[in-house]
Order: sequence, then structure tokens, then C-alpha cells
Amino acid sequence: MSSEQTVKKKIVRIRQGELEQIDDLVTIETPVTIYLNGSELVTLLCTPEKLEYLALGFLRSEGILSGMEELESIRVKEEEGLVEVDLKEKEGLAEKLYGKRTVTSGCGKGTVFFNALDSLRSSPLKGDLNISSEAIINLMDSLQEKAVLYKATGGVHSAALADQDELLNFCEDIGRHNAIDKIVGQCLCEGISTEDKIIVSSGRLSSEILLKAAKLKIQLLISRAAPTNLCIELAENLNITLVGFARGKRCNIYTHPWRITLPFS
Amino acid sequence: MSSEQTVKKKIVRIRQGELEQIDDLVTIETPVTIYLNGSELVTLLCTPEKLEYLALGFLRSEGILSGMEELESIRVKEEEGLVEVDLKEKEGLAEKLYGKRTVTSGCGKGTVFFNALDSLRSSPLKGDLNISSEAIINLMDSLQEKAVLYKATGGVHSAALADQDELLNFCEDIGRHNAIDKIVGQCLCEGISTEDKIIVSSGRLSSEILLKAAKLKIQLLISRAAPTNLCIELAENLNITLVGFARGKRCNIYTHPWRITLPFS
Repeated sequence: MSSEQTVKKKIVRIRQGELEQIDDLVTIETPVTIYLNGSELVTLLCTPEKLEYLALGFLRSEGILSGMEELESIRVKEEEGLVEVDLKEKEGLAEKLYGKRTVTSGCGKGTVFFNALDSLRSSPLKGDLNISSEAIINLMDSLQEKAVLYKATGGVHSAALADQDELLNFCEDIGRHNAIDKIVGQCLCEGISTEDKIIVSSGRLSSEILLKAAKLKIQLLISRAAPTNLCIELAENLNITLVGFARGKRCNIYTHPWRITLPFS
Repeated sequence: MSSEQTVKKKIVRIRQGELEQIDDLVTIETPVTIYLNGSELVTLLCTPEKLEYLALGFLRSEGILSGMEELESIRVKEEEGLVEVDLKEKEGLAEKLYGKRTVTSGCGKGTVFFNALDSLRSSPLKGDLNISSEAIINLMDSLQEKAVLYKATGGVHSAALADQDELLNFCEDIGRHNAIDKIVGQCLCEGISTEDKIIVSSGRLSSEILLKAAKLKIQLLISRAAPTNLCIELAENLNITLVGFARGKRCNIYTHPWRITLPFS
């Protein structure tokens, strides 16, 4: 955690009817605008770090960028809150974005989202990743250990790519979508293969989170929090193992439990 | 909580290395598309209840609808996942939406958002609402008592409009933005004045949540969760009292503590 992700605020704390003035650490929220081929695409409210990964991951999750070979250049102007991305292909981009412009929102996705959903439904993932329930608990413990910004402020989500043994990368962000996108972007940027990997997250498991993972061909998604029915149904159809409420020594397996072995089974 | 907001799923629970198959209640996530004057505007992923309030609240928060007198008709087609809204004014709408289309996202807001932010910055709220710290704790206790969908599934946020004594309305939704928008919509629909009222929420306090409350001229925003620095700065400038981490017998007051009295002061 760098000091740029928190700020000290004078606040009034009330405890048991007693008032005290204290200094408290608060998490930073910053608007960052992504420009694509010179045009303003989107402004994300986020934790201002790993902005290159955030931009690349966002573009990957939204279906605008598939691989680094499509990228001409990326420039992060952190002080101005800008990331400028240029793609080699200039043609066809307007069409890709047209659907997006009409229907996205702060709360969900529209036509583009459900197009993606339809196409994904038809191609379940392959892969026979195997993991013990103990390893799942250990991965979640590691996520929580590393969550220093959360411990300091209580105001952020965390996410990581992992294999069966350990977390391979890690990030925190005020948005659970952003946190996953930063992982997506880092994998893209560093050429990390994701097909045999796991995503571990602190955030609730909604359909959008599942689809981000599915695009990376992730076989196992683990969270501390609850899933929705739509997330479960997508995971079922896409052959992804979904684990929620991974807390302490317990967890719930919602789909494809055959990937998970008990310690002594 | 109606049975339509949850679904029973067979899951595998692992606890202390032991496996059991159980039935678990999971929260429903549904896509609902809002049509505005016959055109598709946005698809929200939400908890399928109070869809009329959600649509009206979303349009109000986005600056598309200011009052019920602007509304020609609204039709909720729940089974089809549609809400059709027609406004009396057809002119000028394209312009209002143009900025929106270019920049909104699943994670934040763009130009429109920051235009709203600029205009709000110039006009701090008036109002000398007064409340005891004990009443704040009681309001949060009431919110948690009513959160039956959360208790059943662990997968939703709750929000309510309140006065100093009690919650006046209440809703739950998988999205913290949606939950607030449902409250906004209900106030609009039922002509409930909000200037002397309070919003109580389970969700984190980001700038977007603060701006939704500011548009209703809410003087006090209370949450169980953490605020961001941007939310605090907006509340400071707009003369809104911001209370976070309201849990058990404690809470943090981030801005304008003069509205809050201790029990015996």
C-alpha cells in the first residue's frame, strides 16, 4: 500500500455515547478517463494504482481488446487522471462501441453484455483443474493477509490470480469490477496464461464478475461473499467451479464440485 | 421478502474438512431493460421488485427526470424484464442522453457525472436537521432488522429513507446503487418530501451514492460501511453530514458533526 492510496482525515468518532476527535485513514477515489484512439471512451472511479492494468483489463473484459498484439501504445498520465490507449486496428471499432454506448450503466450492462452472455453459453470451458478444500481456505487467507488497504480503511475490494499453491498477483480497488479488471490487465500485459488458474476475490459474485473470469477461461472462482442465481447458472453452463462464503474453515461450492477434493478423501 | 427474490439451490458445504449436501437460498439477479420514449436506454442487473421505483429513481438520479409532472406513462412488464417509460417532453432528450452514451460504464460515470458534480459544488444544501447519536444507532438497527433478504442470502444491499425516529420506506437490491435508486423512485412516485430526511444504507459511500442523496437534498447520509475521500469532500462542500461505520454502539462522523448531538449533551 502506497501512501497515495489513502488520506488522513480528522473525524469525530462516537463510541458508547462518548465523543472523540481522531485522525482516520480514508481510501482514495479518483476519476480516471480512458481515451481510445483519441476519443473519450469511459471514466472509471477507482483506486489510483495499476492504471495501465485497469485500462487494459477493462478493454479486454468489454471485448474491445483481445491481445497485446492489437495494442499500438498505452500512456498513463496519472496526474491528469488519463490513460490513452491506441489500437493498431482503427476500422470496425465504431461498430464494436456502438452497442456499448447505447446501453451500459453504472449498475449493469445491456445488449453488449447479453450478446457476450449468449456467445459464452454455447462454449463451456474445458479443463480438469483439481484443488483440495484446504488449499481454497489457504488462498482466501493469503488474500486477506495481503489486503493492507482494506485493513487500513475498510473501503476496498481485493482480487488475485492464483494457482493451487499461492497468489500470483494481487490488487485492491474501491470497485469489485475494477479489482478483477486490474488482474485481467496484468495477465494480458505480462503474458500470464490463465486457463489453468484460479481467481480469488473479496467481492460478491454477480453475473458480470463471472463473465470476466470466463473470458480468461478461469476454471475456479473463489469469493468470501455471496453469489447470485444468475452467476450460478452461468457457472453451471460454462463448466466453472464457483465457491462462495470462503470464510475461516468453511466454504460453499455452488457448481462443479468434482474439481475439489477433501483433505483426506 | 417474497419468494420471487430467492431461489433454492443444492450446494456442497465444506466445514471443518467435512462435506455436506444442503439446500441453500440464493438471491435472484435479473436483467431489466428500461425503454425511454420507445428507445432502449439501459439494462440494469437488479433484484426484481419495485421495478417502477427503480426505473423512476434511475432516471431521476441520471438527471433525465425531475418530477412526476414530466412523466406521460410508465409500464412495468415484469415477466419480460422491461420497464417502458414515456416522457411528455420528446425534444431535447437526445442531447441529454448524448453525453451519457459516450462515457458511462459498469464502474463509474463520465462527463455527465462530472457535469453534475460541478453544478452541485456551487450550491451547498441548507438545513439544520438535528439528530442524537442514539437515534443514528437505532436507525441502523432498524435497517438491519428489516433486511430479511440479506439475512437469508447474504447477497444484497439495503437502503431506506428515514426521519429522526424511524425508517419511512425500505428496499433491498443486489446493487447498492439500485437500492438507493429504488428509494429515490419511491419518494418521487409518492410525492414524499426528502429535504428534511435521512438516507440509511448498508453500502459503501462513494461519490456516486453521495450525489444521488444530494439531488434529493438529503442532509444526513448514514452507512454501516466506509466512505471514500471523494465522497467526504463532496459532503463537506455540499453541507451534508456523512456518517460511516455505524455498527453496534459506534459510528464515525466524517463531515458537519454539528447536526449530531450526544445523548446527554
